[in-house]
Amino acid sequence: MSEESRHERADAGYGPVELRAADFPLAGKRNGHARTEIKVGAATIGGGAFTLIAGPCAVESYEQFSAAAKAVKDAGFHIVRGGAFKPRTSPYSFAGLQEEGLEVIAQVKAETGLAFVTELMEPGRAEMVAEVADMIQLGSRNMQNFPLLHAAGRLGKPVLLKRGFGNTLHELLMAAEHVMTEGCEQVVLCERGIRTFDQSQRNTLDLMAAPILQSVTHLPVIVDPSHSVGIPQIIPAALKAALAAGADGALLEIHPDREKALSDGAQSLSFSEFGEAIAVLRRMGAALGVPIN
Amino acid sequence: MSEESRHERADAGYGPVELRAADFPLAGKRNGHARTEIKVGAATIGGGAFTLIAGPCAVESYEQFSAAAKAVKDAGFHIVRGGAFKPRTSPYSFAGLQEEGLEVIAQVKAETGLAFVTELMEPGRAEMVAEVADMIQLGSRNMQNFPLLHAAGRLGKPVLLKRGFGNTLHELLMAAEHVMTEGCEQVVLCERGIRTFDQSQRNTLDLMAAPILQSVTHLPVIVDPSHSVGIPQIIPAALKAALAAGADGALLEIHPDREKALSDGAQSLSFSEFGEAIAVLRRMGAALGVPIN
Amino acid sequence: MSEESRHERADAGYGPVELRAADFPLAGKRNGHARTEIKVGAATIGGGAFTLIAGPCAVESYEQFSAAAKAVKDAGFHIVRGGAFKPRTSPYSFAGLQEEGLEVIAQVKAETGLAFVTELMEPGRAEMVAEVADMIQLGSRNMQNFPLLHAAGRLGKPVLLKRGFGNTLHELLMAAEHVMTEGCEQVVLCERGIRTFDQSQRNTLDLMAAPILQSVTHLPVIVDPSHSVGIPQIIPAALKAALAAGADGALLEIHPDREKALSDGAQSLSFSEFGEAIAVLRRMGAALGVPIN
Amino acid sequence: MSEESRHERADAGYGPVELRAADFPLAGKRNGHARTEIKVGAATIGGGAFTLIAGPCAVESYEQFSAAAKAVKDAGFHIVRGGAFKPRTSPYSFAGLQEEGLEVIAQVKAETGLAFVTELMEPGRAEMVAEVADMIQLGSRNMQNFPLLHAAGRLGKPVLLKRGFGNTLHELLMAAEHVMTEGCEQVVLCERGIRTFDQSQRNTLDLMAAPILQSVTHLPVIVDPSHSVGIPQIIPAALKAALAAGADGALLEIHPDREKALSDGAQSLSFSEFGEAIAVLRRMGAALGVPIN
Repeated sequence: MSEESRHERADAGYGPVELRAADFPLAGKRNGHARTEIKVGAATIGGGAFTLIAGPCAVESYEQFSAAAKAVKDAGFHIVRGGAFKPRTSPYSFAGLQEEGLEVIAQVKAETGLAFVTELMEPGRAEMVAEVADMIQLGSRNMQNFPLLHAAGRLGKPVLLKRGFGNTLHELLMAAEHVMTEGCEQVVLCERGIRTFDQSQRNTLDLMAAPILQSVTHLPVIVDPSHSVGIPQIIPAALKAALAAGADGALLEIHPDREKALSDGAQSLSFSEFGEAIAVLRRMGAALGVPIN
Repeated sequence: MSEESRHERADAGYGPVELRAADFPLAGKRNGHARTEIKVGAATIGGGAFTLIAGPCAVESYEQFSAAAKAVKDAGFHIVRGGAFKPRTSPYSFAGLQEEGLEVIAQVKAETGLAFVTELMEPGRAEMVAEVADMIQLGSRNMQNFPLLHAAGRLGKPVLLKRGFGNTLHELLMAAEHVMTEGCEQVVLCERGIRTFDQSQRNTLDLMAAPILQSVTHLPVIVDPSHSVGIPQIIPAALKAALAAGADGALLEIHPDREKALSDGAQSLSFSEFGEAIAVLRRMGAALGVPIN
Repeated sequence: MSEESRHERADAGYGPVELRAADFPLAGKRNGHARTEIKVGAATIGGGAFTLIAGPCAVESYEQFSAAAKAVKDAGFHIVRGGAFKPRTSPYSFAGLQEEGLEVIAQVKAETGLAFVTELMEPGRAEMVAEVADMIQLGSRNMQNFPLLHAAGRLGKPVLLKRGFGNTLHELLMAAEHVMTEGCEQVVLCERGIRTFDQSQRNTLDLMAAPILQSVTHLPVIVDPSHSVGIPQIIPAALKAALAAGADGALLEIHPDREKALSDGAQSLSFSEFGEAIAVLRRMGAALGVPIN
Repeated sequence: MSEESRHERADAGYGPVELRAADFPLAGKRNGHARTEIKVGAATIGGGAFTLIAGPCAVESYEQFSAAAKAVKDAGFHIVRGGAFKPRTSPYSFAGLQEEGLEVIAQVKAETGLAFVTELMEPGRAEMVAEVADMIQLGSRNMQNFPLLHAAGRLGKPVLLKRGFGNTLHELLMAAEHVMTEGCEQVVLCERGIRTFDQSQRNTLDLMAAPILQSVTHLPVIVDPSHSVGIPQIIPAALKAALAAGADGALLEIHPDREKALSDGAQSLSFSEFGEAIAVLRRMGAALGVPIN
């Protein structure tokens, strides 16, 4: 780079600031090492396929949740999402069915044989959640809740670590590092939108986070178009773009009856929207040589 | 949406704030009207294809610019970008070859028969630039330079309007509206990254801007991965994602000798990187049924 | 700083990135040099006093503007603000009285003997504006409109340069540098709020910009609480805080009849609110040994 | 507000979005009710005085911490801050002396008779921390760690709730609401800087958060200039501005030997800088009729 252009780059803000694999002893990419592949139920995240995890924001009832899980299974996918414990900005909002929600997950799991990812919100419930969950989700608001990261890292289960909406990629990788220092090697990173001045999306989807992270870490990186974009009509475009950008998968909200959802309904896809989005995704995957599973 | 989830959405920040076509009398989508197609040289932007505009950031010399234009032509594209007048943060940075740069563009245009887009920075030079340019670029820093928008709107040429790095989509559409009130109906909108707290990209590419804008405007929307992402290794992922997200095209920086570029060299693709990126793009376009031209 | 804390600072984001006086050949502070003092009418900006510039957002009529100017004069101040040419996001909003507005300013100037600052929006009107204005305002949206900065710098008048709502302090200083390369040594910098994810203010007032800028530049720095905070009840707190933070002054919107304002009325102080705010400001100034003028 | 200006306000972004006291059943201001006053040791926060809480970022040793506590006491203040458990971005950074740090606090408390505020990071240690702390600090990264908010709310001690660097004021008030639903009525809100595109400060101090919050809540609001601004030379300006803006106090980092600090040293004031800053603050307080204690 010429002196002139170096000068200009400094001028034009301060970036980009290069992430360096060497700053992350456990999460950083190393020469000769393979990318991490994480088995969750019948699916493998990070092995070259595009893995879709779908389900409702919150487990609301046996009927709602089993319908969603069935839709996921019918569409040919293996991992269902659904929150029993829900972090809610307001203490007066529905905070999930709690223990009862875990029971619903356990029942639907027994019936479908699918794998389930659900959120852990506090160290004191780590074991309880791990009994049911095949993968432990750590939410955006808890990305730097370090005791929680450590507790999750000790459970011997894969961890789905969502980026905080106010956190840098450096911090996301350092959060993975916190989980991994406890012995967990199976961390999936998840971009889910960041806060910016623009409010035409729920949170601005930082899609380039996926290839940028993949350039420094061996961990798989997936994308959550539901919590970022938050507009059902636009979510299919985000899904396709995530696949095209090389993400290892996506985390998608679907709901049997969006209008009646107790949490985040407005950003869920209906089952028919889900079906249409998947059809296009599979066509694209075929063209790119990327299995969708 | 249930009361509960309406509450939560309000909680979770304030968005998304829906853009409404009716707020934009000229740029807004209207029932029954077709999307706007804009002819620039042999290319049509907005007619269902993915139109690639490529070239160096700045016109630096006849040799550099004609080499880049030739690379664009050889790759099968029809529109070349290149700045004669360059807005530079520092007054001590290279500000373009100015009038001499326009002469270089005119010469290369005569030799190649391609179409050219170059930036207009001040009303006083509008005619001079319009004599050479097939399409008038209005830069990110000038998105709300209203006298300039008006001057550009009176030239009878297509206008490429870049989103300000600190501007909302509402403001971008209103800026198009400013251009259009002067009689110009041919405005191409361009997402080029916004400023956020994250510095791992040059500017955070807000890729969802493309489908969100397309849902309210009949104008074509393209994406500039070079000025947003700014990392050559990541730019091909952004290009593919732009296509997958349904953008009408992209604006790409390429340079015959990146290390010696006088402006923004570090974010340009080399010709061989360009060739590789295009090959993948064409494969994807074929699968999606979108011509790349 | 210890290794440990250096590590943590890098972790905690990327900042702060130190501004260096040496990067700004004209605007940067230099050993042994005094701070710049700028005379505008009977006032001096940058000489240790806190200089208040007040007036309506836009000149709407002779009656409205002369009433506001009289209120400024009665309160003991010397510089009146008021826009004849108004940059407006929408082309359908009131864009100022234009030339007629300049005539109103000229008339009120003749009657009151006060000094006037008004905005210049395009190089082609530079002389016209300079005939009336004692100080040329360059607006937030034009902070990186370089031909305009150059045109303003050639007028032989003080320039009031507002920070772009999406621009860094580095860029603000570089914009001043652009003005100064044209021979103008009298530039007043103005912080007016930046765009952030938080929407409880109109723009987030970055009050610390004032002392940070003063640590690297010899130019005076004032604060605009009206366009940043934008809530009349909170503006007096911003004014007091600006004084306490060491700013060289403030730019304040007042209006004889806020409800009927054609532009930005909601953020203007009424004359009685103005009077109350000033009284507290003078009391604080007396305690701090800072004249308010 | 006229139609015209309503239009423009919508144009100019989306704000300000008014906070409404009624949305916060426990934290919201109500007619006729007094502002909440919170006694911590010999100090009262929220009773019209400006209360300074000072101390090192982390408890590093008995010597370091007792020296800092002594400096606080000698300066006439009553509350000392100091972290035993430190949330650190990197798992390889110093994370505090942990239990040993609590012992140091207990010892210095016994010797000085001062009150102490220290951070609680996980529900499982709530009792342990509450045994020593006079006030429980909840850190920026944990502002939406709801189980932690609930645990803190059950301890019967005042809670110092720091705003998340990526959180809105609405969310901060809702977080207070979470604490208060557990029976705690003594919550102090603390603005500590937010993440923006500008990196010339550590985090952008959103000083207007103090008066804006005070306009909707009866809870006291203090300001942390150390973690926001992060530049020792600028921190005194932030302190003065906080007082002038009407904040109920400040949280300040001081260190006996900044160069050797194990955590956040670079942003601490030395004891002599602390002394100078306090002297100015007291002078200003006297002028404004606000006791500094």
